[in-house]
Amino acid sequence: MSRLKKVKGGVCVPYDFVAGGIFCGIKESNRNRDDLAIVYSQRKSVAAATFTTNQVKAAPVKVSMKHIRSRNVRAVVLNSGNANACTGKRGFDDALTMAKTAAEALNLQAKQVLVCSTGRIGIPMPMGKITPKLRSLANALTREGGEAAARAIMTSDTYAKEAARELVINGVRVRLGGMAKGAGMIDPKMATMLCVITTDATVSASVLRQALREAVAHSFNRITIDGDMSTNDTVIVLANGASECTPIRGGSAEYAMFLEALHSLCLELARLIVLNGEGVSKFVEVEVRGAVNNVEARYAAEAVANSILLKCAWAGNDPNWGRIMDALGYSGAKIEEDRVDISLNQFLMVVGGVAGPASVSSLRKAATGKEFRIGIDLHLGEGRYAVLTTDLTEEYVRLNLGE
Amino acid sequence: MSRLKKVKGGVCVPYDFVAGGIFCGIKESNRNRDDLAIVYSQRKSVAAATFTTNQVKAAPVKVSMKHIRSRNVRAVVLNSGNANACTGKRGFDDALTMAKTAAEALNLQAKQVLVCSTGRIGIPMPMGKITPKLRSLANALTREGGEAAARAIMTSDTYAKEAARELVINGVRVRLGGMAKGAGMIDPKMATMLCVITTDATVSASVLRQALREAVAHSFNRITIDGDMSTNDTVIVLANGASECTPIRGGSAEYAMFLEALHSLCLELARLIVLNGEGVSKFVEVEVRGAVNNVEARYAAEAVANSILLKCAWAGNDPNWGRIMDALGYSGAKIEEDRVDISLNQFLMVVGGVAGPASVSSLRKAATGKEFRIGIDLHLGEGRYAVLTTDLTEEYVRLNLGE
Repeated sequence: MSRLKKVKGGVCVPYDFVAGGIFCGIKESNRNRDDLAIVYSQRKSVAAATFTTNQVKAAPVKVSMKHIRSRNVRAVVLNSGNANACTGKRGFDDALTMAKTAAEALNLQAKQVLVCSTGRIGIPMPMGKITPKLRSLANALTREGGEAAARAIMTSDTYAKEAARELVINGVRVRLGGMAKGAGMIDPKMATMLCVITTDATVSASVLRQALREAVAHSFNRITIDGDMSTNDTVIVLANGASECTPIRGGSAEYAMFLEALHSLCLELARLIVLNGEGVSKFVEVEVRGAVNNVEARYAAEAVANSILLKCAWAGNDPNWGRIMDALGYSGAKIEEDRVDISLNQFLMVVGGVAGPASVSSLRKAATGKEFRIGIDLHLGEGRYAVLTTDLTEEYVRLNLGE
Repeated sequence: MSRLKKVKGGVCVPYDFVAGGIFCGIKESNRNRDDLAIVYSQRKSVAAATFTTNQVKAAPVKVSMKHIRSRNVRAVVLNSGNANACTGKRGFDDALTMAKTAAEALNLQAKQVLVCSTGRIGIPMPMGKITPKLRSLANALTREGGEAAARAIMTSDTYAKEAARELVINGVRVRLGGMAKGAGMIDPKMATMLCVITTDATVSASVLRQALREAVAHSFNRITIDGDMSTNDTVIVLANGASECTPIRGGSAEYAMFLEALHSLCLELARLIVLNGEGVSKFVEVEVRGAVNNVEARYAAEAVANSILLKCAWAGNDPNWGRIMDALGYSGAKIEEDRVDISLNQFLMVVGGVAGPASVSSLRKAATGKEFRIGIDLHLGEGRYAVLTTDLTEEYVRLNLGE
């Protein structure tokens, strides 16, 4: 297991993947930043994906959900500047046209291409600008294009998010790479999270699906900045077998190694998303133990992680355990007030529901840090859940005031 | 029905109620504002109350829940500056002592007195300061003391909240009066909502309970500023029969008139709380129709009313229907995207899930107002629900940064 290595780069780290980013002017106001990207496997590949569970799904999500059923997805087209959501039949046709245009240039069928969009809701896609540039881009993909692709999907992100891993499976080197865009945006008005992961592992679509589900449940599904779930959220993984490792079967030791690598990659990208969230000044891990069951532990952790009052207190370096007790009380998880223990990093803030032995100054010092951990023990059962969250700053509000 | 009249004043408008407020220095830092109040019925009275459903209940809530079972509650003691929450057994004893001290001075039994506190969590009550002042206050209650009582329960409220009504039941004049304190606070760290209502109507405790439940469901339970539910929220009504009107029986025409008056009073106080919310610049009514049922209509309305992203957009005068569609999609209510209509005041913003005919400039103008109404029709059934909410401003964050 110690063979898992963090390496530089993103989606082009695994063999036989190429990528690129280009400017096509989707958002009038942003002339200096690329807004269209492609990630492409040069050989046969399989794919797995998870999509937003929001009932309002953007057109590209609908198209991708359809195309993922084909057995040999090989490319993903992505754009920033327009979410292509709430755009009706025209929006669906536009997303389909994006898949078709890329497919023609790459000698694929349309159903082998997935589509991701992020940006404004309710505005038709400027297809006249997109189609010709998409063709040029498809013809110019390179092994060096990973970072350009990661840059092209940025919205209010202040840096491109890439991560990569290398591991050895039965003596054969296998690579995973990924790129993501973050949550919270100014003009586009929607906190969309997009992520594309590539790997040259040899793995079937069904095993890949299982691994992605497990990895996402313990990474992307545990982050929250503002509690809003986008119409466009998508995580895609493509696997092309270029490493020529022995096929990874479900439940095997190889699967465990691969899953560890995939999870570690997802977690790094999820942390980057949170850290680069709009107006975020602090990164807070909330871990609940001792709930009646895991579902209730999740209610408790999410109520604490999403409390506006608490997030404001954190922004002011105020540990404020009263607001934590309050959030636990209305979370929907069973609690018994006089059993609750709460720690801030190593300090016992609350014991048995009342102020603990930690000094106010030590708590305040811990809360002043850029990162801290809230540990909550309800002492009622075995339920556990952890969430990564942030503070809520005046800058966040300023950035989201809209036009 | 047209006999319902809005009148000036608060808890002392109904006959045979006296009140008062006094300074006792609960919060060191706030030397210029009264912090202790009593409302007292000079004759036998009955009471009804609703309390926070938060599992973490402050000591005064626990004491009041016990005392309300006695048949003849006659007084309420209230303080600001300390919530007496998460204070363990000592806190409970302190709340009990407050009831006892007031009872002795007023010649009552302790169980005839309810207690409300609002302020900081987790700090022991400074009983040495409270007890002597409570005695002096109990001996100085007057018919003119309503406003002083309303002032003494303020925390970050910028004005005292009072309202009163007069109606005629079978030729006899009946009065209702109330005071409330608002949501959101700076130092006290907890958005507590307290309200005391008095009436000289002749009504049994059980009918009063029923009326209060109905009135609260359509007023205080429909307001949201930050989605946090306090450990101390309490609404109390005392009825002393001093009007000598015919007893109000459940289900009668008199009951309907009384309920209308009580509801109208509660709604006015609820609106005052929202309008005076921390850093609030806008007052927004969100009304959902056409949901599968009322419960789902409530999910939908509350998701929209509590979306941080949307509240930030409103602060920026941005109608942003995309964020509304998004919130509906994750609300838990069933929606069909292409059936959703959304209006902003009289303007059709969304029709069938896509941009409606209203011009961007007319929507923007409407969203610039201090008050507006979002109407949502899901076109799936008969379910309805309405919520009163606010925007989320940089000032709100600043006020809640903590110490």
